[in-house]
Amino acid sequence: MTETPACPVPDDLPAPPPARRVARAQVRDGVVSDGVRAVPEETPVALTYNGTTHAVMMASPTDIADFALGFSLTEGIVAAAAEIESLDVIVAGDGIEARMWIAPEKVARLAARRRALAGPTGCGLCGVESLAEAVKPAARVTAARRFPAADILGAMAALAPAQVLNHETRAVHGAAYFEPGAGLVALAEDVGRHNALDKLVGKASRLGLNPAEGLLLLTSRVSIEMVQKACVLGTGVIAAVSAPTSLAIRTAEAAGITLCAVVRADGFEIFTHPERIARAGQPERATHVA
Amino acid sequence: MTETPACPVPDDLPAPPPARRVARAQVRDGVVSDGVRAVPEETPVALTYNGTTHAVMMASPTDIADFALGFSLTEGIVAAAAEIESLDVIVAGDGIEARMWIAPEKVARLAARRRALAGPTGCGLCGVESLAEAVKPAARVTAARRFPAADILGAMAALAPAQVLNHETRAVHGAAYFEPGAGLVALAEDVGRHNALDKLVGKASRLGLNPAEGLLLLTSRVSIEMVQKACVLGTGVIAAVSAPTSLAIRTAEAAGITLCAVVRADGFEIFTHPERIARAGQPERATHVA
Repeated sequence: MTETPACPVPDDLPAPPPARRVARAQVRDGVVSDGVRAVPEETPVALTYNGTTHAVMMASPTDIADFALGFSLTEGIVAAAAEIESLDVIVAGDGIEARMWIAPEKVARLAARRRALAGPTGCGLCGVESLAEAVKPAARVTAARRFPAADILGAMAALAPAQVLNHETRAVHGAAYFEPGAGLVALAEDVGRHNALDKLVGKASRLGLNPAEGLLLLTSRVSIEMVQKACVLGTGVIAAVSAPTSLAIRTAEAAGITLCAVVRADGFEIFTHPERIARAGQPERATHVA
Repeated sequence: MTETPACPVPDDLPAPPPARRVARAQVRDGVVSDGVRAVPEETPVALTYNGTTHAVMMASPTDIADFALGFSLTEGIVAAAAEIESLDVIVAGDGIEARMWIAPEKVARLAARRRALAGPTGCGLCGVESLAEAVKPAARVTAARRFPAADILGAMAALAPAQVLNHETRAVHGAAYFEPGAGLVALAEDVGRHNALDKLVGKASRLGLNPAEGLLLLTSRVSIEMVQKACVLGTGVIAAVSAPTSLAIRTAEAAGITLCAVVRADGFEIFTHPERIARAGQPERATHVA
């Protein structure tokens, strides 16, 4: 365990609530009336490693430890939860700090990654290496389980009533892990879709889940970063309410992930690796996944 | 003008199209059929200043010069378009580079801001200063023009048919500037809502618009960062299709911006500074805005 030097820790304030009721005027058919609406809170969260701020993310002020763990995993800062030597969540005046300590050699890796993504590039002039870093291939997913189409629809039907914060505000995203037989095993909500997925990855790691056995559910559109995070989670199937980008499709194809999107009550669309969606008479396990 | 050293410029490839038609299977009421869907492209865009990559953003590959200019303005890297000495858009294999040259003293300011947001903080241990930097107050908007409620509804009705890329893909955001009398003056589309607004800010600067005279239209939810960018644009009124966060409301209140959201065909909600929404008999100009 790294020794933590003395530091003037801010007052440990209570975390802000994830939603607030605010007064607002409503204009409807030309008539103005007063009333209230529940809106989601949005809080800056500083992710610090060994005393240095790596990033400040705007997030819902819930499940911050899961968020910090999940972010550390999906950003490749650590390869496993055990590599985070300590993690403290500190509520400060302007936001929340997730204060992490990791082995010094991992901090060096972190600095190298920051230089690769944003910083002087090889020839000293152009962003070509930064661009390649942004789209670098994710680890290939090897999950072998097949799912009948009804599982996708059933999973998504189970998700909506479980989104407590979204039920209150109608303005936050959800990411969930669903396993046929076990149901909705883990769910995270956040004003940001990337944050919701990072929180879910943290939760799955903390709970020791094996996400290769189930489905990743997303209420949002699917961008490349969502696919890259799904690779870290290790699910073979993404099922999303909205549409994917073209780059997300290419990335899912290369990563061996089955990408289902535009999921509605009566059906959905399959963009990549349809072999994991079982047709009548197929066994639950594929002998191999292409 | 800064001298640009020789550099192995990548092949100047054509920019990727903003949407692609992809083959996908459709599952509907248990029946599987093949077909195609148009999905938005998503391209890494490296924003470089004086040969250093500042950020890589995932964006729709359109209006990249406007994006680079708008990003530079909303991030406070430059205060005016004229401060960008040169701006070249270079299509590389993995994405697009927006290559900018600015005065050397502005690069120093940029480095200071990066240290403030992400880097070792004052006490060497905690993210408190980074948190304060993230929510620091934006410049106060002083636009005095009032708008009848019908203007908000008319503006939003004009927006939807103009969103060409969204019409094709149903999966991208729009940000637009509307002026009663002049109509929809400028519109930007992108897979990311922040990018769409940055493109609009760049366009407004390039066209020499005076956004204090009109409305900023957003198809998305409103987070603090959208309000901070609106302050740079200088519009007095934001009208958004979806809901704001609590922090966005507090920021709009402090910045003097009228925040209208949840805009539907028959009405909308006003969260801050309702004095800019004219009631019957009020003059078009406020004598003062609180």
